[in-house]
Amino acid sequence: MKNIILLYNFINDPFCHIVIRFSTKNISYKARGCLLSILPYREDSNPQTREFLARVVDVLLDFIQQILEFKMPEEMQKMLDLNLPEDPLPLKQLLEDCKTTLKHQVKTGHPHFFNQLSCGLDIISLAGEWLTAAANTNMFTYEIAPVFILMENVVWICLQPVCVPGGPSPQVPACHYSVKSCASVGGLGTDYCIAVPSDERGRMITSELERLVRYHRDRGNVPFFVNATSGTTVLGAFDPLMEIADICQKYDMWMHVDAAWGGGLLFSKKADSVTWNPHKLMGTLLQCSTVHFKYEGILLSCNAMSAEYLFMTDKIYDPRFDTGDKVIQCGRHNDIFKLWLQWRGKGTSGFERLMDRLMELSEYMVRRIKEQSDKFHLILEPEMVNVSFWYLPKQLRGLPHDSNKEIKLGKVCAKLKGRMMQAGTIMVGYQPDDRRPNFFRNIISSAAVTEKDVDFLLSEMDRLGHDIVVD
Amino acid sequence: MKNIILLYNFINDPFCHIVIRFSTKNISYKARGCLLSILPYREDSNPQTREFLARVVDVLLDFIQQILEFKMPEEMQKMLDLNLPEDPLPLKQLLEDCKTTLKHQVKTGHPHFFNQLSCGLDIISLAGEWLTAAANTNMFTYEIAPVFILMENVVWICLQPVCVPGGPSPQVPACHYSVKSCASVGGLGTDYCIAVPSDERGRMITSELERLVRYHRDRGNVPFFVNATSGTTVLGAFDPLMEIADICQKYDMWMHVDAAWGGGLLFSKKADSVTWNPHKLMGTLLQCSTVHFKYEGILLSCNAMSAEYLFMTDKIYDPRFDTGDKVIQCGRHNDIFKLWLQWRGKGTSGFERLMDRLMELSEYMVRRIKEQSDKFHLILEPEMVNVSFWYLPKQLRGLPHDSNKEIKLGKVCAKLKGRMMQAGTIMVGYQPDDRRPNFFRNIISSAAVTEKDVDFLLSEMDRLGHDIVVD
Repeated sequence: MKNIILLYNFINDPFCHIVIRFSTKNISYKARGCLLSILPYREDSNPQTREFLARVVDVLLDFIQQILEFKMPEEMQKMLDLNLPEDPLPLKQLLEDCKTTLKHQVKTGHPHFFNQLSCGLDIISLAGEWLTAAANTNMFTYEIAPVFILMENVVWICLQPVCVPGGPSPQVPACHYSVKSCASVGGLGTDYCIAVPSDERGRMITSELERLVRYHRDRGNVPFFVNATSGTTVLGAFDPLMEIADICQKYDMWMHVDAAWGGGLLFSKKADSVTWNPHKLMGTLLQCSTVHFKYEGILLSCNAMSAEYLFMTDKIYDPRFDTGDKVIQCGRHNDIFKLWLQWRGKGTSGFERLMDRLMELSEYMVRRIKEQSDKFHLILEPEMVNVSFWYLPKQLRGLPHDSNKEIKLGKVCAKLKGRMMQAGTIMVGYQPDDRRPNFFRNIISSAAVTEKDVDFLLSEMDRLGHDIVVD
Repeated sequence: MKNIILLYNFINDPFCHIVIRFSTKNISYKARGCLLSILPYREDSNPQTREFLARVVDVLLDFIQQILEFKMPEEMQKMLDLNLPEDPLPLKQLLEDCKTTLKHQVKTGHPHFFNQLSCGLDIISLAGEWLTAAANTNMFTYEIAPVFILMENVVWICLQPVCVPGGPSPQVPACHYSVKSCASVGGLGTDYCIAVPSDERGRMITSELERLVRYHRDRGNVPFFVNATSGTTVLGAFDPLMEIADICQKYDMWMHVDAAWGGGLLFSKKADSVTWNPHKLMGTLLQCSTVHFKYEGILLSCNAMSAEYLFMTDKIYDPRFDTGDKVIQCGRHNDIFKLWLQWRGKGTSGFERLMDRLMELSEYMVRRIKEQSDKFHLILEPEMVNVSFWYLPKQLRGLPHDSNKEIKLGKVCAKLKGRMMQAGTIMVGYQPDDRRPNFFRNIISSAAVTEKDVDFLLSEMDRLGHDIVVD
């Protein structure tokens, strides 16, 4: 016997006092009281819920093309009705709510959104996330998430052989601020989190690492953990992993590789642990963050609290399939399905081609920047899809490049970004680093981007920014 | 100019070497190579992607009625094709993948799933999660999530007035194991996490709390944090919050209320901080976890790492709208929209009626258990929707209730649960606590449950379990 289980029984729902009738063209409803709840799994369900969900999907598919219709927070607050009402609002209003929300939301999947490491909208991964929502389960025990738990195992096993290619060792810069945050939350204190100097390309200087380790050991401290980075947030730099691994081995330190960003390009077997965010370079939907350890059973030995009331051992299946006691957060969202389905749809070779294509586009962008060197100043040759550059408005063209000019170029960034947001046609991020004032960092991680979009990006920046004047 | 932006251009996609044609009834495709990527936002997109997503939605709506078709992990692994292929699989196979996954997944939205605090499948919240996926943004800065950031503000402000009703003070038992986990991860050490004894209903004994505080202060320790619970995981017990608040004030300790489970019923203004999981009692889709502090700006003062490259202060809007630096995890999933939309759809009054209804059903269950006291033994009168009981197979009926019998009843739980999973018709959780061996804990938190389902639950347990024999 087959039953439609997500359907909402608008009529026989004990909480529902509205009779709702959908027609194909518009939603009409006859109020008998108020609508409270949409129920799944009633045998006597009828097809209106299907209709409601289909309409939501229509709204989702009808995004408009502008990236952002920017409104200042105060203005947006006045314009939107975000109130939580005492009484239920009709389904028609909820559909309007969805439309309005999307209208004012930044379109991160638009090929002119170059602002963040996570860009694009992979449709297969989207379908995966929709299924995840409908399955609505916790990654907790095999009992309640059997298929998803097995999928996690398969995906992580498949990742093992995806390891570092030989040849020129890819290279860490100023590491992600989360390392400092961890030192604080973990009770170590930020004073005991030591920054290792990096070279001009943002890569960790390994002789400095060794010098600092010896310096602190000589003072009776115990350096025990080194965070190397594969693909830094701003410059996209790669630390020299092999050399760092040797130093870690020599001084008995844990080597962690933060490959959150660069992981799609590189895996290391030398590290004790690796983090990777498929939601960045691979385009998996937000969030999908993974951590990998070299040592079997280490998570359980560190984190198991053996809460008997949650993780019983007298089950009919092997309780080692339960993952809840391995992690610190108890409940955990199912982030595996969207990655698994996406991988099935792309194949390993598809991911490879995607990486090649993103690199190709970044190289194209670098070439176009060089061809327009009067308007754009490339800061360094990128190792990844991070392209760092300044935009020169007319005021600053043709002047010699010095630190005084860099300060002015830094001021251009904030002004130009403001104009981008107000125009709503393009978005590129900017930030300072320890060597420079503000500069633009462009990211091409969306499979939707083409050469034409790169050209549009540069010409649009010029259109919006050519007349900027700074002090 | 309006454009359909989620559409996939199957033909002009630079990665796509397949020409795919959908017809209404079946998917036919003509292979020219391999499919790599589904792209959003192409102006020349065509309607096939809409068709693909519509088919995924169909699959989601076509769940079958059985709760669980249980397979042992080894068997499941053999049966499912979970492999990640080298080459892309066709869309038709991906749809099959979705079907197979759902077929074997536990249907947590089924009204016969009573196993977890998070049950049910709220369709409005589901629609909210689908939109969240399509918007695919990080809760990070106002710049990239303007509407969602404002929604968070509105929802949290609206929660403030939802506070504790006066009258009989609701009452913490053995608190959630995450407190111990926090003490470990936070560098405090589990030895410095002291359990306060609870009464037979699982509520914290406040005289014991005060005695322990004085005992440890006398030994030079500094008790600084008390975790009270509103609605414990197993018994659904409420700690006496008002008395605990007085003790915390007297000894200058931080009072945190874990209202993850009971929060839907109760908010406290006395506490310094409160956690609440709308994904439990309120039925919001997983995950939706919140934490509330009494003191404005406290998160920023504790957690801000002021990473300049992420959180610039020279923006065109007030950077206080950026939330990224308030939290320890940097990137954060958008969990607000599904709650906001659900609230709009239910109204505050709708949530109130839902709570009343869940309590009514739990009371109904208690009555039915008492009426069948030969088969079921109610352990205590519930304060919430947690109903704790033993099932008595024929072997154990009519015998005097003593500790020896309780041990046998505990053994029945594991056996009966095994039979439930293998039948796939019903799921109820069991666990021991510090006073008893295993017992069943039933949860009614799904809006889909009716009196008929409660009756089915009890009769199905008896059908599956009456002939169980234990030593």
